[in-house]
Amino acid sequence: MTDPMPPVEPLYRPLDLETAIDLPRIAIEQVAPMLDDGRFAVKAVVGQAVTVTAVVFADGHDQLGAAVLWRDEQDPSWRRVPLQELGNDRWQAQFTPTHMGRAEFVIEAWWDRYGSYTYELQKKYAAGVPVTLELQEGELLLQQIAEQASATQAERVLRLLAELQQAQALEERVALLLAPDSVVLLAEASRHPHVVRSQRYPVDVERLRAQFASWYELFPRSQTDSEQRHGTFRDVITRLPDIQAMGFDVLYFPPIHPIGSSHRKGRNNSLVAGENDPGSPYAIGSEEGGHEAIHPQLGSVEDFRALVSAAREHDLEIALDFAIQCSPDHPWLSEHPGWFSWRPDGSIRHAENPPKKYEDIVNVDFYNTEAIPSLWLALRDVVRGWVELGVTQFRVDNPHTKPLPFWEWLIADIRTDHPQVAFLAEAFTRPAMMARLGKVGYSQSYTYFTWRNTKAELAAYFTELNEAPWRDCYRPNFFVNTPDINPAFLHHNGRPGFLIRAALATMGSGLWGMYSGFELCEAAAVPGKEEYLDSEKYQLRPRDYYAPGNIVSEITQLNRIRRQNPALQTHLGLQVYTAHNDNILYFGKRSADLENFILVAVCLDPHNAQEAHFELPLWEFGLGDDAAMHGEDLMNGHTWTWHGKTQWMRIEPWHQPFGIWRIRPVRTV
Amino acid sequence: MTDPMPPVEPLYRPLDLETAIDLPRIAIEQVAPMLDDGRFAVKAVVGQAVTVTAVVFADGHDQLGAAVLWRDEQDPSWRRVPLQELGNDRWQAQFTPTHMGRAEFVIEAWWDRYGSYTYELQKKYAAGVPVTLELQEGELLLQQIAEQASATQAERVLRLLAELQQAQALEERVALLLAPDSVVLLAEASRHPHVVRSQRYPVDVERLRAQFASWYELFPRSQTDSEQRHGTFRDVITRLPDIQAMGFDVLYFPPIHPIGSSHRKGRNNSLVAGENDPGSPYAIGSEEGGHEAIHPQLGSVEDFRALVSAAREHDLEIALDFAIQCSPDHPWLSEHPGWFSWRPDGSIRHAENPPKKYEDIVNVDFYNTEAIPSLWLALRDVVRGWVELGVTQFRVDNPHTKPLPFWEWLIADIRTDHPQVAFLAEAFTRPAMMARLGKVGYSQSYTYFTWRNTKAELAAYFTELNEAPWRDCYRPNFFVNTPDINPAFLHHNGRPGFLIRAALATMGSGLWGMYSGFELCEAAAVPGKEEYLDSEKYQLRPRDYYAPGNIVSEITQLNRIRRQNPALQTHLGLQVYTAHNDNILYFGKRSADLENFILVAVCLDPHNAQEAHFELPLWEFGLGDDAAMHGEDLMNGHTWTWHGKTQWMRIEPWHQPFGIWRIRPVRTV
Repeated sequence: MTDPMPPVEPLYRPLDLETAIDLPRIAIEQVAPMLDDGRFAVKAVVGQAVTVTAVVFADGHDQLGAAVLWRDEQDPSWRRVPLQELGNDRWQAQFTPTHMGRAEFVIEAWWDRYGSYTYELQKKYAAGVPVTLELQEGELLLQQIAEQASATQAERVLRLLAELQQAQALEERVALLLAPDSVVLLAEASRHPHVVRSQRYPVDVERLRAQFASWYELFPRSQTDSEQRHGTFRDVITRLPDIQAMGFDVLYFPPIHPIGSSHRKGRNNSLVAGENDPGSPYAIGSEEGGHEAIHPQLGSVEDFRALVSAAREHDLEIALDFAIQCSPDHPWLSEHPGWFSWRPDGSIRHAENPPKKYEDIVNVDFYNTEAIPSLWLALRDVVRGWVELGVTQFRVDNPHTKPLPFWEWLIADIRTDHPQVAFLAEAFTRPAMMARLGKVGYSQSYTYFTWRNTKAELAAYFTELNEAPWRDCYRPNFFVNTPDINPAFLHHNGRPGFLIRAALATMGSGLWGMYSGFELCEAAAVPGKEEYLDSEKYQLRPRDYYAPGNIVSEITQLNRIRRQNPALQTHLGLQVYTAHNDNILYFGKRSADLENFILVAVCLDPHNAQEAHFELPLWEFGLGDDAAMHGEDLMNGHTWTWHGKTQWMRIEPWHQPFGIWRIRPVRTV
Repeated sequence: MTDPMPPVEPLYRPLDLETAIDLPRIAIEQVAPMLDDGRFAVKAVVGQAVTVTAVVFADGHDQLGAAVLWRDEQDPSWRRVPLQELGNDRWQAQFTPTHMGRAEFVIEAWWDRYGSYTYELQKKYAAGVPVTLELQEGELLLQQIAEQASATQAERVLRLLAELQQAQALEERVALLLAPDSVVLLAEASRHPHVVRSQRYPVDVERLRAQFASWYELFPRSQTDSEQRHGTFRDVITRLPDIQAMGFDVLYFPPIHPIGSSHRKGRNNSLVAGENDPGSPYAIGSEEGGHEAIHPQLGSVEDFRALVSAAREHDLEIALDFAIQCSPDHPWLSEHPGWFSWRPDGSIRHAENPPKKYEDIVNVDFYNTEAIPSLWLALRDVVRGWVELGVTQFRVDNPHTKPLPFWEWLIADIRTDHPQVAFLAEAFTRPAMMARLGKVGYSQSYTYFTWRNTKAELAAYFTELNEAPWRDCYRPNFFVNTPDINPAFLHHNGRPGFLIRAALATMGSGLWGMYSGFELCEAAAVPGKEEYLDSEKYQLRPRDYYAPGNIVSEITQLNRIRRQNPALQTHLGLQVYTAHNDNILYFGKRSADLENFILVAVCLDPHNAQEAHFELPLWEFGLGDDAAMHGEDLMNGHTWTWHGKTQWMRIEPWHQPFGIWRIRPVRTV
């Protein structure tokens, strides 16, 4: 290739002596939480502790001290939290961010002179070794520390020194030096030799809703009693009380913009639309406007404002779809031809996945000379506009097909002025990109959850999401279905199938989502595909939301349990436990203080009763195998006492294919 | 504390648009081999391939290309090796360093325009979609590539373009564009958009002996026929043929310097030495000289030169101990008092591990004002002096109690002029420091091997050493014993016990070491301790090296097998396999091309015969469970054919407590 090679800089210079002498003597390694050596911010939530760990060590046997320094945009001065040693050079501390926006932390470590001194003194004194010389050294050390300390601290150190010199008995002098008050005073007064600090590690602090929310998705145009009448924002308002009652927090709409008519798709994705077919809302833009406009049949901007405001009254936030693609009728094609790719015959390049063509959609080209920076700014302004209308969440369509630097810039730009705004990545692609989207700023992500069905698959996936790097960059939003995904598991497993997936999603993550129809156990599929028959993407779908067989009350109770139990308000802290049956997934979730400890058992077989011996995780509470545990069934309120580690369960999926139990050690009840 | 807080720099600036547009569009992540984000060099060996992997990806569906660029000090121009995609965005390539010293590599990735074009063309053409427009686009692309290419390449591209334009049939034109020659030409001629390069990752290339060597340790003073006569370097020369015959490569001596007389330790570490007690060689320095001097009773500098030269004739290198500590009689104490710590009463601070005191030893203080940089330079000059006398290896005593920056500087300094020199870290401490010593430059390290005895312990340890970060920074030298460690396992398990440990060490790592006496199965211990009774550290120990019951012939054969089988010349490439018996550790080692594949089974029970069904790793060769495998016993030359995956073994430890078999698929024999 003719690409120039990197410049031939000097390959290597051996460390010179002056540099070596100035190098940190103390090593700080394996800092967590951390992503790509600090290139990206780790995720955190207001009011929840960030647990920082690091490996800190140095040569020799002297005592080290270490602390986390942290700060946030609200208060740019540094706060210091001492790190505690866990053994084998591992140290740990916590800090709790209190404001949305960026925070950062630094690890600091130092040679603890007074700590090393008292460590030796104590050992020798306890062993009966003469310590007269050590006491003399102690006085000298106090003198030195006083010389370097602040005036107030120096005065206190000198007072201690005077006491020491007046004391007669050896025991008394030793006791003075080892007294906890002295240790605290000298630690605070000391200027430490060999202080070393790590680089700064960024933290992205969001509100709790970025980690704990229940999403409900609907097509506003289907909120109608007849396929002949296009639903409106006003119709959606009448649905709000039901959606709130089910316990949802976020109401999400597929695109609400004008829909193109060129190459419009008909029912069931047919290539030719009928005269009255409304078209796919993902074919964005017509002569009536583009991404900034509202489809006229849905209502006006005023109607939209009214909907946002009504939703807020029902404790619901509005999430919009952000799909950066255009119908061939989008105004941008004529206004900004330089934002698109054109072919030699003058036609526009359609979206395609060769040999498939999507002729109702064209994509922008971010790096076209004429698109930099005008396209980037225009897209940002689209998002800004909706934020100003009260939209707080954006579900982004296929973000993995748009440049990563664009997202990193856009999300940072929006969240600087509007830190409450969150972006949900709808990427179904390879793992590295899924993680990277979280790193560049997405608060939440769609997941592989829909395709994890067996006990082994689910256990591995839930566990992986609790491990690095996922735990630090990726908040999984478990959608049980979407307009694009009618999961195979739901096709023939009836009501129990829907309840199984609802339990897994609601208990597995703090974030879950449901596309309307799920509560009615709708499952009719295009034969052989994970797609909905008569998909709402191409036609209006009026529904009877009170149809018999629905699972509304179960969903309501699951959401209620989530609100009442902090352990369930995150995907973190999940641990798979042993149940001796491959058809029963059994796991626990706990708050950091163990105060809230939930056990979940889901029968993955929708047809047959399953039984299992299982282990009550008494060890998590530091209890022996014969301890007793108070249990409470959170679905029906029954309570009981379990005795001993090994217990037995039976789940009949036709009644309820899962159990959710809160446990408490008997002593604390 | 009064330590100043870090400066209050701006906490965070959101990414601005100009920066975002210039950010790399392609992500390069998870580069291996790599240590601490490139802060330290990974280890490599001349002539052995370095396998580089990375995760490389970008937005969208276009094809990417990627390569490793690498160079070394010998040739600072960059060489390019294409990376191959392994799936899920993982890429891999290899390069083979040819010279000792530093090398470095960079990952480069780019948008592959022609690759993306042919990918689409091929798909559409195969699906029977019209491609006239695509062919036009192909011509345009060739035109563009020619414009940016070098003159020679442009000419070839334009020739292809002309052929294309003359061709009539569609098939002919498609075939021209997809021809392998065209693909190679266009790939080479293209200036790629969005080229991105990783940072540079350093590699420390050493000679094979840094990774593959057998060490033999002896006290020169004990090479005598009577405790009344101090052994000399000349005596050691007479031992060389035997040591060479056993198959050793490195002959290592504890300190050979003058020994202090103040507080000299007597036999068995007693506090008072008898008149004729020679003292511990670790109490370095007397009026006869310090670290640069030779103990007069061992011989002269000329004698030492003669020994080095004789050793070389026997294919043996000399390793010296580098113990940075002084007896109270060391000349440095009076010449450089500022290099040491003094107590308030004017006495010197002895080494101690409270409440224990080591009054025959004092330590230097690296960061004393008067020690910077004179002490650092003096220590460097000591090492340089011995290198100039022909010493190529240094076993460093307790390096974890000296500053890490000192080692990083010293090792780099020495190896810049003498890249063949290797340092072996004698650190027995917590894992983070063990790893870090390898990172700052130690070629080899003592290990926890001596305290890994059960199958579970050994399997876990051997496996861990093959994983990051250990595989990249730490070469384990498995010493079966040392003057300081008389392992408990050897105390009462007789000859089989020694053979078990010898087999584990020689087969487990490319590096192993033995302290003399091991071949005679010496095991007498200080009661209740892992220390030798009548330790050679405090007295002369003449030996009959031909005493009955010795294991010289077994050690000789083990070392011969190591020389004949490249798979055994490293600790890497080890895989523990299944043998259904907790007393049999069974593992394999293989060369990268599988040409050399060795199976090792060690009976960990020295007293009873053990039997096991075990799995022949047919799958490693891509063979089915019923395949046949040629086997050869490397201890006795027997050969046979194994049929099928499950086999059976019986080991009688009183005959030979291990089996070492080379396997080859039958088809290749």
